[in-house]
Amino acid sequence: MTALWEPESKFRIWFEIEAHATDALADLGVVPRDAAAAIWAKGKFEVDRIDAIEAEVKHDVIAFLTNVAQHVGPEARFMHQGMTSSDVLDTCLAVQLARASDILIADLDALLAVLKRRAIEHKLTPTIGRSHGIHAEPVTFGLKLAQAYAEFDRNRARLVAARADVATCAISGAVGTFANIDPAVEAHVAEKMGLTVEPVSTQVIPRDRHAMYFATLGVIASSIERLATEIRHLQRTEVLEAEEYFSPGQKGSSAMPHKRNPVLTENLTGLARMVRGYVTPALENVALWHERDISHSSVERYIGPDATITLDFALARLTGVIDKLVVYPARMQKNLDRMGGLVHSQRVLLALTQAGVSREDAYRLVQRNAMQVWESDGDLSLLDLLKGDPDVTAALSPAEIEARFDLDYHFKHVDTIFARVFGPDAA
Amino acid sequence: MTALWEPESKFRIWFEIEAHATDALADLGVVPRDAAAAIWAKGKFEVDRIDAIEAEVKHDVIAFLTNVAQHVGPEARFMHQGMTSSDVLDTCLAVQLARASDILIADLDALLAVLKRRAIEHKLTPTIGRSHGIHAEPVTFGLKLAQAYAEFDRNRARLVAARADVATCAISGAVGTFANIDPAVEAHVAEKMGLTVEPVSTQVIPRDRHAMYFATLGVIASSIERLATEIRHLQRTEVLEAEEYFSPGQKGSSAMPHKRNPVLTENLTGLARMVRGYVTPALENVALWHERDISHSSVERYIGPDATITLDFALARLTGVIDKLVVYPARMQKNLDRMGGLVHSQRVLLALTQAGVSREDAYRLVQRNAMQVWESDGDLSLLDLLKGDPDVTAALSPAEIEARFDLDYHFKHVDTIFARVFGPDAA
Amino acid sequence: MTALWEPESKFRIWFEIEAHATDALADLGVVPRDAAAAIWAKGKFEVDRIDAIEAEVKHDVIAFLTNVAQHVGPEARFMHQGMTSSDVLDTCLAVQLARASDILIADLDALLAVLKRRAIEHKLTPTIGRSHGIHAEPVTFGLKLAQAYAEFDRNRARLVAARADVATCAISGAVGTFANIDPAVEAHVAEKMGLTVEPVSTQVIPRDRHAMYFATLGVIASSIERLATEIRHLQRTEVLEAEEYFSPGQKGSSAMPHKRNPVLTENLTGLARMVRGYVTPALENVALWHERDISHSSVERYIGPDATITLDFALARLTGVIDKLVVYPARMQKNLDRMGGLVHSQRVLLALTQAGVSREDAYRLVQRNAMQVWESDGDLSLLDLLKGDPDVTAALSPAEIEARFDLDYHFKHVDTIFARVFGPDAA
Amino acid sequence: MTALWEPESKFRIWFEIEAHATDALADLGVVPRDAAAAIWAKGKFEVDRIDAIEAEVKHDVIAFLTNVAQHVGPEARFMHQGMTSSDVLDTCLAVQLARASDILIADLDALLAVLKRRAIEHKLTPTIGRSHGIHAEPVTFGLKLAQAYAEFDRNRARLVAARADVATCAISGAVGTFANIDPAVEAHVAEKMGLTVEPVSTQVIPRDRHAMYFATLGVIASSIERLATEIRHLQRTEVLEAEEYFSPGQKGSSAMPHKRNPVLTENLTGLARMVRGYVTPALENVALWHERDISHSSVERYIGPDATITLDFALARLTGVIDKLVVYPARMQKNLDRMGGLVHSQRVLLALTQAGVSREDAYRLVQRNAMQVWESDGDLSLLDLLKGDPDVTAALSPAEIEARFDLDYHFKHVDTIFARVFGPDAA
Repeated sequence: MTALWEPESKFRIWFEIEAHATDALADLGVVPRDAAAAIWAKGKFEVDRIDAIEAEVKHDVIAFLTNVAQHVGPEARFMHQGMTSSDVLDTCLAVQLARASDILIADLDALLAVLKRRAIEHKLTPTIGRSHGIHAEPVTFGLKLAQAYAEFDRNRARLVAARADVATCAISGAVGTFANIDPAVEAHVAEKMGLTVEPVSTQVIPRDRHAMYFATLGVIASSIERLATEIRHLQRTEVLEAEEYFSPGQKGSSAMPHKRNPVLTENLTGLARMVRGYVTPALENVALWHERDISHSSVERYIGPDATITLDFALARLTGVIDKLVVYPARMQKNLDRMGGLVHSQRVLLALTQAGVSREDAYRLVQRNAMQVWESDGDLSLLDLLKGDPDVTAALSPAEIEARFDLDYHFKHVDTIFARVFGPDAA
Repeated sequence: MTALWEPESKFRIWFEIEAHATDALADLGVVPRDAAAAIWAKGKFEVDRIDAIEAEVKHDVIAFLTNVAQHVGPEARFMHQGMTSSDVLDTCLAVQLARASDILIADLDALLAVLKRRAIEHKLTPTIGRSHGIHAEPVTFGLKLAQAYAEFDRNRARLVAARADVATCAISGAVGTFANIDPAVEAHVAEKMGLTVEPVSTQVIPRDRHAMYFATLGVIASSIERLATEIRHLQRTEVLEAEEYFSPGQKGSSAMPHKRNPVLTENLTGLARMVRGYVTPALENVALWHERDISHSSVERYIGPDATITLDFALARLTGVIDKLVVYPARMQKNLDRMGGLVHSQRVLLALTQAGVSREDAYRLVQRNAMQVWESDGDLSLLDLLKGDPDVTAALSPAEIEARFDLDYHFKHVDTIFARVFGPDAA
Repeated sequence: MTALWEPESKFRIWFEIEAHATDALADLGVVPRDAAAAIWAKGKFEVDRIDAIEAEVKHDVIAFLTNVAQHVGPEARFMHQGMTSSDVLDTCLAVQLARASDILIADLDALLAVLKRRAIEHKLTPTIGRSHGIHAEPVTFGLKLAQAYAEFDRNRARLVAARADVATCAISGAVGTFANIDPAVEAHVAEKMGLTVEPVSTQVIPRDRHAMYFATLGVIASSIERLATEIRHLQRTEVLEAEEYFSPGQKGSSAMPHKRNPVLTENLTGLARMVRGYVTPALENVALWHERDISHSSVERYIGPDATITLDFALARLTGVIDKLVVYPARMQKNLDRMGGLVHSQRVLLALTQAGVSREDAYRLVQRNAMQVWESDGDLSLLDLLKGDPDVTAALSPAEIEARFDLDYHFKHVDTIFARVFGPDAA
Repeated sequence: MTALWEPESKFRIWFEIEAHATDALADLGVVPRDAAAAIWAKGKFEVDRIDAIEAEVKHDVIAFLTNVAQHVGPEARFMHQGMTSSDVLDTCLAVQLARASDILIADLDALLAVLKRRAIEHKLTPTIGRSHGIHAEPVTFGLKLAQAYAEFDRNRARLVAARADVATCAISGAVGTFANIDPAVEAHVAEKMGLTVEPVSTQVIPRDRHAMYFATLGVIASSIERLATEIRHLQRTEVLEAEEYFSPGQKGSSAMPHKRNPVLTENLTGLARMVRGYVTPALENVALWHERDISHSSVERYIGPDATITLDFALARLTGVIDKLVVYPARMQKNLDRMGGLVHSQRVLLALTQAGVSREDAYRLVQRNAMQVWESDGDLSLLDLLKGDPDVTAALSPAEIEARFDLDYHFKHVDTIFARVFGPDAA
């Protein structure tokens, strides 16, 4: 991904755009066929030479053309005919963002594959579901990963859409009127560079496309933060249901030799903040003045590479974390059991209402027993207390109460959900 | 749009979700058929009563159910069976956002219609294209509006996609396992409320969906800012090519009776900042803890109504501005002419290179004459200077030079562009 | 706080500004003394009447002046002499933000008082310090609160500075030149309204002041999020070292009667996102065009009330949470003890290096024993393992090792820190 | 500024912190005096060697210490005694941000000097003041620059405050309790490194300090955007009252040889977006978990250098732009005159009210004549029309009307304003 944003790559794309455009101009008879051939044959560039010329003329595309012309010779004057700098710059950016998207889509595919594998591995590994950080009811660890899979699958679809949004080619001249260049040139370059034609450009490709692109990266980064946060929570000392892989020789703290910290997912949390931070500048880039101003350019020189390289790194890192994540099913079960059966409170509530108790009364009956268990930090058992509460046993027999304390009951629709997420074979 | 976010609307949607769910439960035989019928027949609610109950129980859904139960009677205990509050809240939010989207899509359609009408009206109205705020080459005012049309048409497609992303129904119980409620209930409610089924939920619908939604609104707002900024520029005293409609009786300034200000588009610029400002909180909402925390809720209570109502207002205002925009073609022509023909400099450059002058030399020749015109503030004529420059006339005859100063030359592809944007009939 | 932003309050401030300005004009002999007296004596306004007039003239200040003039009679023509609307609007906003600041400063004082009381209460309550969510070394709960105190004390100082930044008065006429109004008027109004004089204004007070103000609110909101997040963590089921007060009658979940959730601090987390979200629009408001455009106005109509009311609410809520926070010292001790003494690993490391073992070797020796404890989930004891490790006992005697497992050792500088934060009396 | 953020600088600061800390430990008798001397005498490091070690241990501070120890020998074990990595990292960041601030303060001083010089140069250069982009009333170009001066002078004060906020030293050990390190070490290092002591730290220096710092940079960036936007406006073809210096050999467009574009100030506009974009990640960094998590670190690795280097570059660029700005007083006068005297409308309004006409009637009388001038694009003269309006001349004689069309009238308080901004000598 880094290579894509190097000057070498950029100028290579510029050269291809210019050369393809000259081909199309030759097809139209605007420039000699030989000139087009000469550009492909003799055209080359040197990054440092371009920099030196730019220092004088203060215009990057002119510097590039001057350098290429030094190699091509007189035929070089047929290059860039009727084009404006932005035709090259914006089409190049479209190519770079399209290629960056392809890398990111591959990253997402790798992450999705790992998430699917580990979701299926832990499809029925029981663990406590938590809302507000508080034990709620049982889920499976596979379900957690299936949720992440579904979320990143949506993100993949969004990125494919964002890629299409941004992968357009504009070769429309100074203010987008094709005054000095035929639309056929644009169509030719678009096809050769793997882009679609921009229906109407000003001097530039409109920046709502890029805004949508970087906003989509911001959403993906936020999903990364969500999964990273989940793992950070699971690795907390008191929870410790899963842990980032800790390699031999690794040190967790310069001061405390006992530490094993979720530093990778904490790092991902920070990276997510950065990719999100690039969304607003991209949105502010939309309102260029008239047919263009160049304020978008400095922004894109930062966020083009920074957002895509950071996200590429983050997705790869997250894939590695999930791939090697150390999962502790025994600890999950231990945590599940620690609250004295509180996780079954809803089922008792429902059983009471089915038995004719009003919802209000049922809630009150269960809550008063649950609060005792809560305050005992799990030393008391909800089942025992309920069986000893005459108002409860007036409605439900001990056996009926016990039947509500069944873990498997909660997992009967896991297959359904897996089929929804991964397709019928995963059920 | 405002009505959609009133408590009355929200509780109405809650009621429908609960009643439809009870229907489905009755279909499954989980609750009596009569109970479902009773809810529809006797169920109602009072906003102030719910508020009073919530003040005690500090839980909005419980307060709502308690209030409805007061009207329905004992059958009310079959309502909300196996559901969790978020099933109601999140599905309701999905309905609200879907309906808000429908209003916004209608707003966009109205704006698109106005943009199209005025674009066609001014399809060939010449005006100067500006890059960097500096005169570049001629365009037409219709092209400016066609660009805006294409941009808002893309925004429409993005909003349709964002609507689909956010219009899902989750009735999956406490932590999304369907432990106490059959997936068939979810399917039934989804169909009745015009939503799709959420493939896998936690306790809540995942917030990447909402993040994408509000990010999309942020992009649309940025496009509004762009068009508003264009009009603000055009109304500047020195430019005055177009003007917001100024109604009789309106006052521009309390101190200066001569003022007519682009206050509507300035207002839109500020509103765009607000809608953009809501994007980041929506992105920060994604990383909820475990199966959910409720931090997203306060954010959504602000941005749900604020972003959609603001954008609805802004789109309607922008539509009105474009609809009634006072356009001054004579002034556009006057501005076009004021720079002594500088706008034709590129065509002379191209003609020189076609005539065998190197691109470098051609650029220098044209630039040295152009700079004289520039410094005269348009008092000198580029055409005259070029005809008097022996290095130019060595390559081009006066007639050949004159032929490059032709306005219509720039508009020969306007039909092509209009066909791309509006379809073949608009060409 | 809400009252401050009501139309009634706003128009009251407008009236005072206009009346004070007319006094000053009378002092200068520009308007009759009787006119100034008449304005104070007869001047009043009706909000609905102003709204009706504004619907016609589309200018709020003109509508206000017209309404007041209806009560004052002919002398009203001496009101607003040489002033521009922004003189009134911006000075009013300065008054509102200054008053809002006073409320927020009082909120901070209340929070600081509660933090100090509870910090001193728990000055020596031992609890585990965590880095990366992993047990590190012991701290006291009072230290956690002292950190929060110091942070909010800094925020108080920042807010005082931000208040000073924003509390300026500009009565400088149409474009800030005082062409039609003497600077003495500004000085008089500033003094009467409790503001300082704006040294140089355009038509408006420069918006960098407001940007700094709202940025400061964003920092305060982030500090709220930090303390709220701490409490959310402490209330997690597995940790449960502290808990939001849960009132009798309160319900934590519509489905699960056992739930007690940290909903107040989760709510605060969301509110912090909103206040932060208002920072960027405020920053975007700085770059107004020339001597002013009105794009800032719509932004401020949102964020003026929304940011201050939200922050006021959030600070009050946080104060309530800390005030009533249920703290569980026994549970803190239990958590401290659960990792088999790992929290003392650094002290053993240091003792080994003091005894001549190289830092590298010492780290390795302690880490290999600590990892065994870690993997036992606290069932093994670090002290026992170290006493059984011959490489360790070669350097340290059992007694020397044991001496490193002393909790009080960690608290010997708590007095020093308390004195730094609360002053010498708190030590 | 770039050098400050290179690894070499960072490790140099780390080394100084460690060495000073060891000095203090020797003063306390905790480590041998010779060890401290040996560190200063023999201590050095190699960036590539540290990188190689970090690849194995995955901990940057441990890698650094290992590398230094290789040079120092056995005495190295006395280094870092009782410290934690963050003591080094956070204190280093404080030093870097303090030094970055010094550079930025020097940048601001340079900008202020240039603004003052050019403000005084153009103290009485008349130019039209514009509100809403529409001609309002006359100002001077010097006043515009004085406004910018005052704004950047405020920014300087804010940056000085932000520097003080962030320039603190924490050497407080693993979780901030000084358990294994005496507070005297912190005091010593703070003094040697030019910092103040952090009153209470966790494992880290609290991040509200850094949030405030980067928020302040965001405000400064917004002020840069404001001045840059002003210049972009002034350089518009139709306005052209000032222009960025255009060097010989510079090319404005690859296609249009006539172009001279305000590319520097457009570039500054984009850079401002970036620096603003870093504010939100900095705010999100505040809410670290418990005694710290490391999510802030990746954010700071980006925004530490990116925000300060970008702002340094931007301030220097803006200083250059203002220094060399080509100002066109003749064009300013021409623009002032082009609206047929409309800029004097307020003075006539005031004269009418002074002559006994009601404010409402006066406004109507002036507005009806002003609108005619407006619609003539300045071809009609407001003075002529007013003199021909019997309702006006009923109240004011032609001479009285003419007296209101006096430019100098507007500048009589310029001295007052300059004295406020630059001190009494500038008046």
